[in-house]
Amino acid sequence: MQKPKISILMGSDHDLPVMKEAGEVLASFEIPFEYSVTSAHRSPGRTVEIARTAEERGIKVMIVGAGMAAHLAGSVAAWTTLPVLGVPIEASLGGIDALLSTAQMPPGVPVGTMGIGKAGARNAALLAVQILALSDPGLKERLRLYKETMAREVEEKDRRLQNPSRRE
Amino acid sequence: MQKPKISILMGSDHDLPVMKEAGEVLASFEIPFEYSVTSAHRSPGRTVEIARTAEERGIKVMIVGAGMAAHLAGSVAAWTTLPVLGVPIEASLGGIDALLSTAQMPPGVPVGTMGIGKAGARNAALLAVQILALSDPGLKERLRLYKETMAREVEEKDRRLQNPSRRE
Amino acid sequence: MQKPKISILMGSDHDLPVMKEAGEVLASFEIPFEYSVTSAHRSPGRTVEIARTAEERGIKVMIVGAGMAAHLAGSVAAWTTLPVLGVPIEASLGGIDALLSTAQMPPGVPVGTMGIGKAGARNAALLAVQILALSDPGLKERLRLYKETMAREVEEKDRRLQNPSRRE
Amino acid sequence: MQKPKISILMGSDHDLPVMKEAGEVLASFEIPFEYSVTSAHRSPGRTVEIARTAEERGIKVMIVGAGMAAHLAGSVAAWTTLPVLGVPIEASLGGIDALLSTAQMPPGVPVGTMGIGKAGARNAALLAVQILALSDPGLKERLRLYKETMAREVEEKDRRLQNPSRRE
Amino acid sequence: MQKPKISILMGSDHDLPVMKEAGEVLASFEIPFEYSVTSAHRSPGRTVEIARTAEERGIKVMIVGAGMAAHLAGSVAAWTTLPVLGVPIEASLGGIDALLSTAQMPPGVPVGTMGIGKAGARNAALLAVQILALSDPGLKERLRLYKETMAREVEEKDRRLQNPSRRE
Amino acid sequence: MQKPKISILMGSDHDLPVMKEAGEVLASFEIPFEYSVTSAHRSPGRTVEIARTAEERGIKVMIVGAGMAAHLAGSVAAWTTLPVLGVPIEASLGGIDALLSTAQMPPGVPVGTMGIGKAGARNAALLAVQILALSDPGLKERLRLYKETMAREVEEKDRRLQNPSRRE
Amino acid sequence: MQKPKISILMGSDHDLPVMKEAGEVLASFEIPFEYSVTSAHRSPGRTVEIARTAEERGIKVMIVGAGMAAHLAGSVAAWTTLPVLGVPIEASLGGIDALLSTAQMPPGVPVGTMGIGKAGARNAALLAVQILALSDPGLKERLRLYKETMAREVEEKDRRLQNPSRRE
Amino acid sequence: MQKPKISILMGSDHDLPVMKEAGEVLASFEIPFEYSVTSAHRSPGRTVEIARTAEERGIKVMIVGAGMAAHLAGSVAAWTTLPVLGVPIEASLGGIDALLSTAQMPPGVPVGTMGIGKAGARNAALLAVQILALSDPGLKERLRLYKETMAREVEEKDRRLQNPSRRE
Repeated sequence: MQKPKISILMGSDHDLPVMKEAGEVLASFEIPFEYSVTSAHRSPGRTVEIARTAEERGIKVMIVGAGMAAHLAGSVAAWTTLPVLGVPIEASLGGIDALLSTAQMPPGVPVGTMGIGKAGARNAALLAVQILALSDPGLKERLRLYKETMAREVEEKDRRLQNPSRRE
Repeated sequence: MQKPKISILMGSDHDLPVMKEAGEVLASFEIPFEYSVTSAHRSPGRTVEIARTAEERGIKVMIVGAGMAAHLAGSVAAWTTLPVLGVPIEASLGGIDALLSTAQMPPGVPVGTMGIGKAGARNAALLAVQILALSDPGLKERLRLYKETMAREVEEKDRRLQNPSRRE
Repeated sequence: MQKPKISILMGSDHDLPVMKEAGEVLASFEIPFEYSVTSAHRSPGRTVEIARTAEERGIKVMIVGAGMAAHLAGSVAAWTTLPVLGVPIEASLGGIDALLSTAQMPPGVPVGTMGIGKAGARNAALLAVQILALSDPGLKERLRLYKETMAREVEEKDRRLQNPSRRE
Repeated sequence: MQKPKISILMGSDHDLPVMKEAGEVLASFEIPFEYSVTSAHRSPGRTVEIARTAEERGIKVMIVGAGMAAHLAGSVAAWTTLPVLGVPIEASLGGIDALLSTAQMPPGVPVGTMGIGKAGARNAALLAVQILALSDPGLKERLRLYKETMAREVEEKDRRLQNPSRRE
Repeated sequence: MQKPKISILMGSDHDLPVMKEAGEVLASFEIPFEYSVTSAHRSPGRTVEIARTAEERGIKVMIVGAGMAAHLAGSVAAWTTLPVLGVPIEASLGGIDALLSTAQMPPGVPVGTMGIGKAGARNAALLAVQILALSDPGLKERLRLYKETMAREVEEKDRRLQNPSRRE
Repeated sequence: MQKPKISILMGSDHDLPVMKEAGEVLASFEIPFEYSVTSAHRSPGRTVEIARTAEERGIKVMIVGAGMAAHLAGSVAAWTTLPVLGVPIEASLGGIDALLSTAQMPPGVPVGTMGIGKAGARNAALLAVQILALSDPGLKERLRLYKETMAREVEEKDRRLQNPSRRE
Repeated sequence: MQKPKISILMGSDHDLPVMKEAGEVLASFEIPFEYSVTSAHRSPGRTVEIARTAEERGIKVMIVGAGMAAHLAGSVAAWTTLPVLGVPIEASLGGIDALLSTAQMPPGVPVGTMGIGKAGARNAALLAVQILALSDPGLKERLRLYKETMAREVEEKDRRLQNPSRRE
Repeated sequence: MQKPKISILMGSDHDLPVMKEAGEVLASFEIPFEYSVTSAHRSPGRTVEIARTAEERGIKVMIVGAGMAAHLAGSVAAWTTLPVLGVPIEASLGGIDALLSTAQMPPGVPVGTMGIGKAGARNAALLAVQILALSDPGLKERLRLYKETMAREVEEKDRRLQNPSRRE
């Protein structure tokens, strides 16, 4: 049993169906991680505490999902020098509010913003793996295999589809 | 010399040209106020401190201007039960990013959001005056005069403009 | 039985499912309130009457929900010096039309705009409670408890979720 | 000297450079008109008065320009059964706020919305002329000439431009 | 049996559920009208023909609904000097594409644009009635009754809703 | 059996329900075509290969559908001098993300962008047919018939709908 | 001197600074072309005429620029079976109105839409060249050289910029 | 002299004024970096080459700026397992096109997206430093100092501004 290296935060347990996409990716790479629910606005003290202590607890990357005004990733980034990756979650307006609130950070406090929703959550986990792989050759190798597998899966989908039209 | 009743916060001194519109309105109503610069992301500890101590310092309403991801108003609202009024400031995308980041707060932590920029800053101050006037009959009377003056000013503008077309 | 302190207006009875979120919050704080249906455009005389007489009827804050062009909050604000809080209601375009129409008021006539829909309605009620609490220490204390309860609820949600991944 | 048939309203004298495009079109058709400045929010009583008395003053069509939340056209339409044409004026966000606030009227109270800014103001005047021409054959004839002139002007512009490329 | 005075055009019979809202309003005012399906792009010759002959067929106002690029109203306006009212119909992007394509006409060729969808279709019909009423006192009187009825209906909705909260 | 002249690419087999609209149009014109699944990001080598070899395989036009960041059409255009037509596919935000990503190409590498979704896919195929018809008089004749049929279908829809209102 | 093969249309001579980007590209490939000014709305008859006769005049591809409601490309496409490429021109709202009005065509009448403004105009010309090159091997070869030159120019820009940071 | 650890790519040398903000931040942390100009579309082979060889050249993080369709970051991410950070650059539409094109990546190929323009470029560099600091305690310490300095700078700005209003 290992200590978590990645912290997956979300503003509400309603966000779990989106954020567990991140967890599944991390699990497939055998990266230990933790889920936490905390809100930038409803439990700000808890959020500060989680952000400030993440590093000493051994966390390397923080993945943060939130919807609407979506301040959680920025709030976490304010209190840590760990890389923070933000996942905008659709709650209204197609998620454009969360995307802008997560991405448009002022200079000095970065949040690496992913796409809206499940695709973004998966990619946040993969970017975290890419970061960990910088000092873990085994992980780097797995990422190469992952990329190759993706490419092969596309080819297989194509093979099933391939059905050139002919003169009828 | 009175203790400030209204706190006008802004994320950067670049926001002063917008936020002093709020100060001018308050000054015209003889409401003591303070300006502070603090950032939700660059000086989060200072922001928490300002928000948590506002009430005991005698502040009644907090007016908060910020641009881009514009988390400042929400960050303040997370730490106080005073009314918080947010002014979205245009820095990019016409200010729509700041408007959405300020308005789309999750249930439980309200921010009364004003329009973008100077008009919003003036209105934040007026809404603060309306709030103070609930327990200050003199201020209430001044607000009535303010409203009458506005209406009269429109009529005067009309008089200068009035120039019905005639058959030429 | 007390006289209502908060007036909750809506442009149509179709808006009740959204606006009763505001009523429920007020009821939980034991704040007497009234619901009214009135339209800025279909019953403009009635709207003027409600807005002009609100203060003398003992109303302290007006919460106004409307969708589409969403002029109701602004129309009310034109006729009163009470604080007016606007709730944009989604009817088309995800509610961005109502948000802009409510927030982008000209200088001189403020509307404190909340988020779109139910979250916004709840927050309008909470902001109204915060305003009333400025001169009601008991209410202020309840707000503090409300904030503490929110934070605790987040922690409880986290406890149910907490499920750190381990090496599988 | 004739009584005005068209009323051109605007929320502020700052809007005159846009709205006088409407006046110039009307003058070119020798339609008597009036300009008025009135605000839906700052001079609501005056706005109601102008809207309610327009018909008895001989007005046939009301052209209303406003920016930002742009409630003026809707406010006028609430108090009259005359045709109301709205001109969204750019003040922020490229004028999309004013366009949505003017166009997205609830069923029962129509506003014929024109394009943003000067093009919209010219077209509001032309639509008003088209409406008057329904019962004025002379005006109808002028409109036909106007349309022909427009087409000829396009051809003239083309003649000046016409410059086919050749093998160089 | 009367000759139609209002022409309701639509780009496709899929638009009928929206556009018959206009027809129902006209029928309630006993205004004879016609429906036609024609496309600016798929049947351009037919569209030109309908637009050019509308006036001689006795049409007074053209109501035109279309979605997506929504060129139909503009195409009609290009070929007639009758008032043209456009109804943007939602087909994608919430209808914002159709709204912009209908409203943003170049100077010289006006289209009075209504709100998106059914509300817009009803209002197009009402604006057409307002235009006809300029030379029909009986219709003018009916419009006044319609406005009064609308206001009374709002009051009745309020009566059913009215349910002031009391201390529980 | 003929060699395919049109290549229909899509980023995922999930896009087939949209893209087969293009295939159906091509089949109705008896144009031989091929479907391929390839991703700009997940199988970039395969994408380069398909794009680079398209011309020598006898392809004349490439039709490319993709959603979200929608880089596929641009990636193909980077590697070929064949005409590339892009079909934005709705996956989030109503497809506006894919539309902008497909259309806003830098100078030097064109993508002819179609509307969002099925309508866009059909039109991509038709534009491809129009391109092929430039050197195929038989195809040109079929396109003329197609246009005439479209116009007639509109008239038939109208005939079924035609139902002029009369005095009731 | 050759007969024009490409027709570059624009709604107004104000659009020439954008559209001559297309002309310059065509001239550099020695493709004969013509410029015409015509408006979908102000000179609709002329527009129909140009579109209907283009093919018999030897035109192969039509490049059409327009701003705002931007119906011109669609209007041309309605009357021809030639490939039509649309260039949205920024006049308001950053050009998003023109982009949507040009791209969101109904099924059956395609417009290949380019990016907004000058980049789009250049690309329209290049796409036209790509289309012509399908039956012109010399042109095909030039396109290959153009692509190589572009790539080399990027490398040259890089060489001028290349300036790796070092330990200071 | 050290080998570069960070690669800063941009689609055009026009993007240098934005992207050198990233370089300045890296220089201030004494991180060796390189600038390269390459285009996803105009020099795709070069882009593939840079992306594929980055890791073996010792690059740890790739920072990629691009505007409009902004495919460059995604194109790079397709060919490497290094972390890729994208900076959307405003070229039209306020940069919303580039933001969406950079952020909305499909699952499997992550791009950590920063805010639009210079703020985004600075933050991309800081996020890269945060990533490097995971295995460089000296850099971690510098980041802590950087954060403290930022907070102190806010306080100093406040001190210069601090000017509480008093009763006048």
